[in-house]
Amino acid sequence: MHQEQRQQAHAYLQAKGVERALFANPYTVKWLTGFAPPVQVGFNFFAGGPPLVWYEAGHFTLLVVDAYAADTAAFDEQVDGAVITHLGYTIEQPLAGADHLTRALRQVIGGGSGRVGLEQRDVPVYFQSVVHDALGAADFVAVDGWLEPLRLVKTAEELAKLRENFALTDVGHAAVRYSSIAGKREIDVWAEIHSAIQQAAGRRVPLGNDCVVSYRENNIGGWPLDYEIRPGDSLIVDLSTILYGYWSDSCATYYAGEPTPQQAAMHRTALQALELGISLVRPGAVAREIDQALRQFIAAAGYPVYPHHSGHGIGVIGHEAPRIVPYNDEVLQAGMVIMLEPGIYLPGQAAVRVEDALLVTADGAEVLTKHDKSLP
Amino acid sequence: MHQEQRQQAHAYLQAKGVERALFANPYTVKWLTGFAPPVQVGFNFFAGGPPLVWYEAGHFTLLVVDAYAADTAAFDEQVDGAVITHLGYTIEQPLAGADHLTRALRQVIGGGSGRVGLEQRDVPVYFQSVVHDALGAADFVAVDGWLEPLRLVKTAEELAKLRENFALTDVGHAAVRYSSIAGKREIDVWAEIHSAIQQAAGRRVPLGNDCVVSYRENNIGGWPLDYEIRPGDSLIVDLSTILYGYWSDSCATYYAGEPTPQQAAMHRTALQALELGISLVRPGAVAREIDQALRQFIAAAGYPVYPHHSGHGIGVIGHEAPRIVPYNDEVLQAGMVIMLEPGIYLPGQAAVRVEDALLVTADGAEVLTKHDKSLP
Repeated sequence: MHQEQRQQAHAYLQAKGVERALFANPYTVKWLTGFAPPVQVGFNFFAGGPPLVWYEAGHFTLLVVDAYAADTAAFDEQVDGAVITHLGYTIEQPLAGADHLTRALRQVIGGGSGRVGLEQRDVPVYFQSVVHDALGAADFVAVDGWLEPLRLVKTAEELAKLRENFALTDVGHAAVRYSSIAGKREIDVWAEIHSAIQQAAGRRVPLGNDCVVSYRENNIGGWPLDYEIRPGDSLIVDLSTILYGYWSDSCATYYAGEPTPQQAAMHRTALQALELGISLVRPGAVAREIDQALRQFIAAAGYPVYPHHSGHGIGVIGHEAPRIVPYNDEVLQAGMVIMLEPGIYLPGQAAVRVEDALLVTADGAEVLTKHDKSLP
Repeated sequence: MHQEQRQQAHAYLQAKGVERALFANPYTVKWLTGFAPPVQVGFNFFAGGPPLVWYEAGHFTLLVVDAYAADTAAFDEQVDGAVITHLGYTIEQPLAGADHLTRALRQVIGGGSGRVGLEQRDVPVYFQSVVHDALGAADFVAVDGWLEPLRLVKTAEELAKLRENFALTDVGHAAVRYSSIAGKREIDVWAEIHSAIQQAAGRRVPLGNDCVVSYRENNIGGWPLDYEIRPGDSLIVDLSTILYGYWSDSCATYYAGEPTPQQAAMHRTALQALELGISLVRPGAVAREIDQALRQFIAAAGYPVYPHHSGHGIGVIGHEAPRIVPYNDEVLQAGMVIMLEPGIYLPGQAAVRVEDALLVTADGAEVLTKHDKSLP
């Protein structure tokens, strides 16, 4: 699992002269190992520290609490990686996950000198000192963000995870589209969506992002609450599921009854903006030019321009490079996966947003989201 | 919000000669401020670091990304605390949450010398260096776990949060109890429970812990999967919701059809063990003695003794002191909230567990969970 990622990371670190490193950023750990701890109720009480990855002599070792032993079995089989699990929960002695994790980390740290990479924005002070003590002394170098550019182009393994995940958000959208939302509250619709997704997946699936009725003052986004959806209202439903640690994303707008002429006109414009955006996606396209084209299209149609991004990359994080925003000169490459999500918002009155996921292909884009976003 | 907690913490830190400190442990931050970031899909991408609390001159400042500004308004009003929010999401410039958080932290750090407390198992290396640089030099002292004993006895404010939260797990249990589970999968039952809870709360609510059918080899606990519940099977449903950052907990066992004589006998024994446990809870009771009494009761009834704790404290963490386990000499005090959860497990065959939450009162215990755990 994720051997290709570790090979890339090894080559990069070698080129930078870093022979040993400690990683603790959750996105780095996911990307390097394919292991993603569950997040639904926060992190494991008994772990004593975040999942860590120690890199040395071209090998990556994942250090993780024993509760996740089964989830890391696939990583354990890889030739360039290993897993060490440490004791978390026990009734035999006071909980001491951090001490057990420390012992595991000391066990895997070899000798030698030279620079030690450190994700200093994520590694707790305590675990830096464990490394320092194990090596006698260490010349630490911050490696935060170093591996992020390697994440831009997805591997075949990552694309398979993403496709499976986007299919889950399709399920979620179908649950709203083919039900009647008038008279329900945002949270009722959300509960139906979440149930449909989890039942399709056969397991628990974390779900973000927005479920907001049009009359909310901020009708761009927000968590579902007990606002009632009245006849004539619209509802923005923006869904991200997390599967194998990878994020999906997708948005559509639904109506309580027949859309009004204003709603229909706004919806058609948003769909046309999205189609325009999709037509511009190809290797060599510049992020800010796509962003600008979408904003100009919305403005030319006589609507206020949305205050958010036109889109963003996606992977181990739900919003990452390349950002499709006004300042960004990044150039699209084949193998990137990006979201596009134009919207039109009249605060407190009317709102629409539609969003698709796009795989940048050799000569254009493949749409990964299959949900029906059309005007009903 | 949580002014009483900050007063206690201030008195404790003063007594220990610590005039300044940086806290980053999520449970410490919740307890000190009453602020709990949402956890359902992991932490905020744009924050640039965890929510931090800086303590100086008797004042506590919460440093948190602007996305949570509305959620921290109540804390902001308190005389001994303040909130500084920093820029997270923007389309105007590259994301730089950590830089903005750094600026906020530097702004609130005063001068002076003396020891600086640091939660070294949670504070990232980077933010320690920010403190170090701001002070010129600093003598850091690890304060990990220092405030945990202060969390044992709940304040009136915390009890109100816990009561509201335990009512949510009652709703979840009612959703299983009054439906038919035969032919459903674990995940189907779970989805119904979660929907009922979120619809009752009118908002999203994180939900743990277990939903496992009796024929699973490990039928003690685990996340719901697509195992089908067949006629004659039992189902352990152990629910924790998180509300205002505080955890609930509760367990019951349900049957697909009439319980068999074996299931009924096991269920009655587990209920009696729980009743015995409740009768022992009072100020002055010793944790390990309650644990031992429950284990002996199960053994005397001729069943294998459960391999887990007999119970645990609960609050900002779902499992905290006082642990009701064999080694623990801790003595119960009025105002503590503990769980008791005896079970009987025949791996792969039959399993039962029942669990209640108990507030230790002046002369006994008040049961905070109201769900029906009786034999149907």
